[in-house]
Amino acid sequence: MAQNAKLQVTVLGSGTSQGVPMIGCPCPVCRSTDPRDNRTRSSIFLRTPEAGLLVDTTPELRVQALREKVDHVDAVLFTHAHADHVMGFDDLRRFCDLLGGPLPIYGSPETLQTLERTFYYAFNPKKTVPGYVHVVPHTVTGPFALGGLTITPMTVPHGAVQTTGFLFSHRGRRMLAYLSDCQSVPPEAVDLMRGVEVLIIDGLRDHPHPTHLNVQGAIAAARTIGAKQAYLTHQTHDKSHAERERGLPAGIGVVYDGMKLEFDLE
Amino acid sequence: MAQNAKLQVTVLGSGTSQGVPMIGCPCPVCRSTDPRDNRTRSSIFLRTPEAGLLVDTTPELRVQALREKVDHVDAVLFTHAHADHVMGFDDLRRFCDLLGGPLPIYGSPETLQTLERTFYYAFNPKKTVPGYVHVVPHTVTGPFALGGLTITPMTVPHGAVQTTGFLFSHRGRRMLAYLSDCQSVPPEAVDLMRGVEVLIIDGLRDHPHPTHLNVQGAIAAARTIGAKQAYLTHQTHDKSHAERERGLPAGIGVVYDGMKLEFDLE
Repeated sequence: MAQNAKLQVTVLGSGTSQGVPMIGCPCPVCRSTDPRDNRTRSSIFLRTPEAGLLVDTTPELRVQALREKVDHVDAVLFTHAHADHVMGFDDLRRFCDLLGGPLPIYGSPETLQTLERTFYYAFNPKKTVPGYVHVVPHTVTGPFALGGLTITPMTVPHGAVQTTGFLFSHRGRRMLAYLSDCQSVPPEAVDLMRGVEVLIIDGLRDHPHPTHLNVQGAIAAARTIGAKQAYLTHQTHDKSHAERERGLPAGIGVVYDGMKLEFDLE
Repeated sequence: MAQNAKLQVTVLGSGTSQGVPMIGCPCPVCRSTDPRDNRTRSSIFLRTPEAGLLVDTTPELRVQALREKVDHVDAVLFTHAHADHVMGFDDLRRFCDLLGGPLPIYGSPETLQTLERTFYYAFNPKKTVPGYVHVVPHTVTGPFALGGLTITPMTVPHGAVQTTGFLFSHRGRRMLAYLSDCQSVPPEAVDLMRGVEVLIIDGLRDHPHPTHLNVQGAIAAARTIGAKQAYLTHQTHDKSHAERERGLPAGIGVVYDGMKLEFDLE
């Protein structure tokens, strides 16, 4: 890989399932004019010199891709198949067009099954229609390589379902871990992420939630993992970005739509 | 109904399945700065003194509702279940919350079946979770009343599927007909709409398409119907709004995102 090669990460969305602002909500956060309080549904995009990798396809995928000028996706990783993480799936058609072929997608067996139930027309290798979405599913069972990175899936609990977190490593460096929806972080996942440079983790709100980590839980998980820097994602309208950041200890921040992170790949 | 009562119609989206601008497209229309060339997926919202009626739930429903300050929906009508018309369905949860109960939805048997296959959790009357979307399906078989209007469904062909167009009437006045996706308009539908005040009709692009009316086909259909005014919808990036309008005969226009129409209800 060339010198000065980078892994660039763009936060496409940082909001919880209903987004911020919430429709018809008169609260100060939903009426905020700070662009960081405009939170579409949680998703990230990674670019290496070799590939563009999308994590999840939110209902607002088209809006996010236009905003961040994402025009080349080589593969899609899915954390799980809840509506706020997958309902933009059909908009992958445009990336298939630009790529000139089917898109590889990665997820747990349950996630891929749920996607196929809805978007069955994208999964039929014998009947492809030009201009339509067409994918090649890959069941995630252990570490795999994409775009010059090693991607390690981690199974984490999220209420009635389990979601897949992803650890992105390069030559043994644990660069980025992404856990968008989790109620806790099991010891096996902690071991895989230990000492990670940047952790982006579900930290929904202050008060506890049955299927998500709250802010205190996310901070505790970040410390257990030993993340050098952690950022909360999947935020509700309980606090503005500025208010949320003010209350956090050193080494913990909050992602926002459009935020960028960069890692040297040497 | 009170004097000065109005039917207000807001165009939530006016674009074809991939929207305009298209992701990663360098064409002049996709780079246009005219806000009328910013086309989310086709949908309209109707408000009468009695009710708010949404037609379709596009992937961008949340974005559209925030933009047009739609904060109260009493019922949803579905034209069909293609992705560009339904993938915002889960965002109805917010309207259920604001309404304080389940949302009635209306569609053909095929449309409702497809919706239920994906959003099964919204259709279970015995297991409702506060804060989640919950609907009561109504199969459309003939005219029905909502919000002080009579709504007449019309079955029209759209490639391999049939879609449902809707005629909105008040005391016998045929006010508005909405046909978002159709390849032709069968004689039975023409009879139902004859002389309608405003027709919003699929007019995808100049050159023919196997499942959509093109511009010339839409103009011909509007004339056959005898619409006093017609507007094309479901537009691609082939022409800008301004270019498209310049080429149209009197009585034919093009809808755009955010466009409003008003009808006196006397």
